[in-house]
Amino acid sequence: MNTPRKRRYFDWAATALPDIPVPRDIPWGNPSSRHLEGREARGALEDARSRCAAALGVKAEHLFFTSGGTESNALVLFSTLFRSPGDILASAVEHPSVSENCRVLERLGKRVSPIAVEGDGRVSPRTLEAALRKNPGARLAVIMGVNNETGAVMDLPGLISRIRNREGSPVHVHCDMVQAAGKIPLDLTALDVDSASLSAHKLGGPRGIGLLYCRKDLEPLYSGGGQEGGKRPGTENTAGALALADCLEKRLDPDTLRGEYEAASGRWKTLIHALRNLGRCSLIPRDRGEGDPRFSPWILQAAFEDIPGEVMVRVLDDAGFAVSTGSACSSASEKRPILAAMGVDEQTAFRGIRISQGWSTGIGDVAALVNAIGEILKTL
Amino acid sequence: MNTPRKRRYFDWAATALPDIPVPRDIPWGNPSSRHLEGREARGALEDARSRCAAALGVKAEHLFFTSGGTESNALVLFSTLFRSPGDILASAVEHPSVSENCRVLERLGKRVSPIAVEGDGRVSPRTLEAALRKNPGARLAVIMGVNNETGAVMDLPGLISRIRNREGSPVHVHCDMVQAAGKIPLDLTALDVDSASLSAHKLGGPRGIGLLYCRKDLEPLYSGGGQEGGKRPGTENTAGALALADCLEKRLDPDTLRGEYEAASGRWKTLIHALRNLGRCSLIPRDRGEGDPRFSPWILQAAFEDIPGEVMVRVLDDAGFAVSTGSACSSASEKRPILAAMGVDEQTAFRGIRISQGWSTGIGDVAALVNAIGEILKTL
Repeated sequence: MNTPRKRRYFDWAATALPDIPVPRDIPWGNPSSRHLEGREARGALEDARSRCAAALGVKAEHLFFTSGGTESNALVLFSTLFRSPGDILASAVEHPSVSENCRVLERLGKRVSPIAVEGDGRVSPRTLEAALRKNPGARLAVIMGVNNETGAVMDLPGLISRIRNREGSPVHVHCDMVQAAGKIPLDLTALDVDSASLSAHKLGGPRGIGLLYCRKDLEPLYSGGGQEGGKRPGTENTAGALALADCLEKRLDPDTLRGEYEAASGRWKTLIHALRNLGRCSLIPRDRGEGDPRFSPWILQAAFEDIPGEVMVRVLDDAGFAVSTGSACSSASEKRPILAAMGVDEQTAFRGIRISQGWSTGIGDVAALVNAIGEILKTL
Repeated sequence: MNTPRKRRYFDWAATALPDIPVPRDIPWGNPSSRHLEGREARGALEDARSRCAAALGVKAEHLFFTSGGTESNALVLFSTLFRSPGDILASAVEHPSVSENCRVLERLGKRVSPIAVEGDGRVSPRTLEAALRKNPGARLAVIMGVNNETGAVMDLPGLISRIRNREGSPVHVHCDMVQAAGKIPLDLTALDVDSASLSAHKLGGPRGIGLLYCRKDLEPLYSGGGQEGGKRPGTENTAGALALADCLEKRLDPDTLRGEYEAASGRWKTLIHALRNLGRCSLIPRDRGEGDPRFSPWILQAAFEDIPGEVMVRVLDDAGFAVSTGSACSSASEKRPILAAMGVDEQTAFRGIRISQGWSTGIGDVAALVNAIGEILKTL
């Protein structure tokens, strides 16, 4: 057992295998400088922005480079401190960069209310209407595109049209698209969202660079040198922006995306079918089917009878497979608030693991994973 | 005149010529993941932190990776929203990432008062004592190490000892060291500062990565996945952290730093002597001498009779020289608040340009710059 074991990576929802490097030999000046070096860097930065805009089908002036998905979400949430009368609605299954910042905003006096989810982890017309009815003062609604722990795909077209058709003051709709972009078809304009967050490292790109799409004139909390149209201060990360443009052009190409989606769906059907046949395995939610359109074919949450999730993660790791329990962003916590919001009982949640795949995952990897889990179930 | 002209870069205070790339082929996992890929990435990240700590002579547990100097400053400033009774003192010549965020905090109800500077742009015992006396409720004092527009070096040992020796509640001292690190000798521990900001791209490293040194248990505003000891959320930028460690090891090596400092001082003496001899040139402040210990030998502010700073920047740019007016971070603004705080009259401030050098600047570059300015003065 001392020979190095082949690793099979099933934690793409935490971070993707990198395949798009930070470019070198690009204009290195400060894009805010007025001299030649600055103007060349400005040109490269705006080129990156235009390319991202074209890949996303939005206007370049609505894109702001940030340090990542977490900052993009925080930027929108904290902007509400300057629109004081408005309350915040946020789905009960948001990523910690939304949910934890909602707790912070509550400490600062903002009213934040959850939008409940159904047992499948999705906001439904019913739960949305209830939240809107209960909080007529809401001016910001935060609903993610794809849940990072279960892969639940929110019906954003249906939900957003309900928000738009409601009487009263307009509600800004913000969507965390970190697990959606490059994974499922995404048309921000057609969706009619007001703002959205993206992260490069989930798309095979580098850390420390992300995007905020925002078509509204939101007022950010953090200030500084006025970069990014005043929305996000700090010397612009030209190289990161160019890498992100590379990511979006590669991953959002419609043909590539369709092909990757179908391949991922096929592998996930195989996985779900095989896991069901193993016995002692229940999916979360239990009724998730093979090829279930309510879920992203890139993420799966499953629980194994009598085996704590932590243990399963460790044993699979020893066997050469990288999986996780919740999100990496909450791996230090024992709690599973997303599963709790779905009504999953504490015992089952305690046993849940997340399996997530990527574009270089092969059907052989899936077969090996199923085989390894089968072996583990024989001994544990 | 159509042959490409050799460029000579004199805007290192805006960004340095890059000489330390983002490393490739490093552990790519999410450092918060518990599997092998995550643990390897965690190891690399903590290795980067330890190396930064060793280079800075501080404890690794007091270092937090951020997206850059702007974010490091904002993180400390906005943490005061949770220590509500405390007022803020900030020097009147801080970088926009401090001064602009102070304006934001005022809108949110915080009391912020300036610490005035003398005509040389430095906080003095007199101005500090006056600010402390006037604001007994101050709990945070922000004083930069080296001013980004004039190169004024604050006497931090003297100033901080006055803050410490004062009766009453302790005051957290935060120092923006973005223009100090790698440029002048820096010992955060001996200085007795509570927190300090650093940026990689001013040190020849990549954009999008910086450090907050903080030895106090400050409570950040932004929350999320609990990364960086809860101080700074978002998936950790392992590659950026390693590049920053490379920067600090290279630039803060005592022998390197001493040698670079002496070489820079020599070049700046030559520059200042030659500019004085040109006529029509006044330094800002006027009494800045050759080898003046009150100023960093990496930055110089000067004004030329009858020539607006904007014009001088443009004409020098056409001649192959990159200089700036104020900081790149405020290049969109016509105002020069730092010069105004020094008592520089509006006309002179309007004519000010910033010349800043770096480790690859040669004495030949300085001679060429002086020559070019001389030629410009003959025609303009």
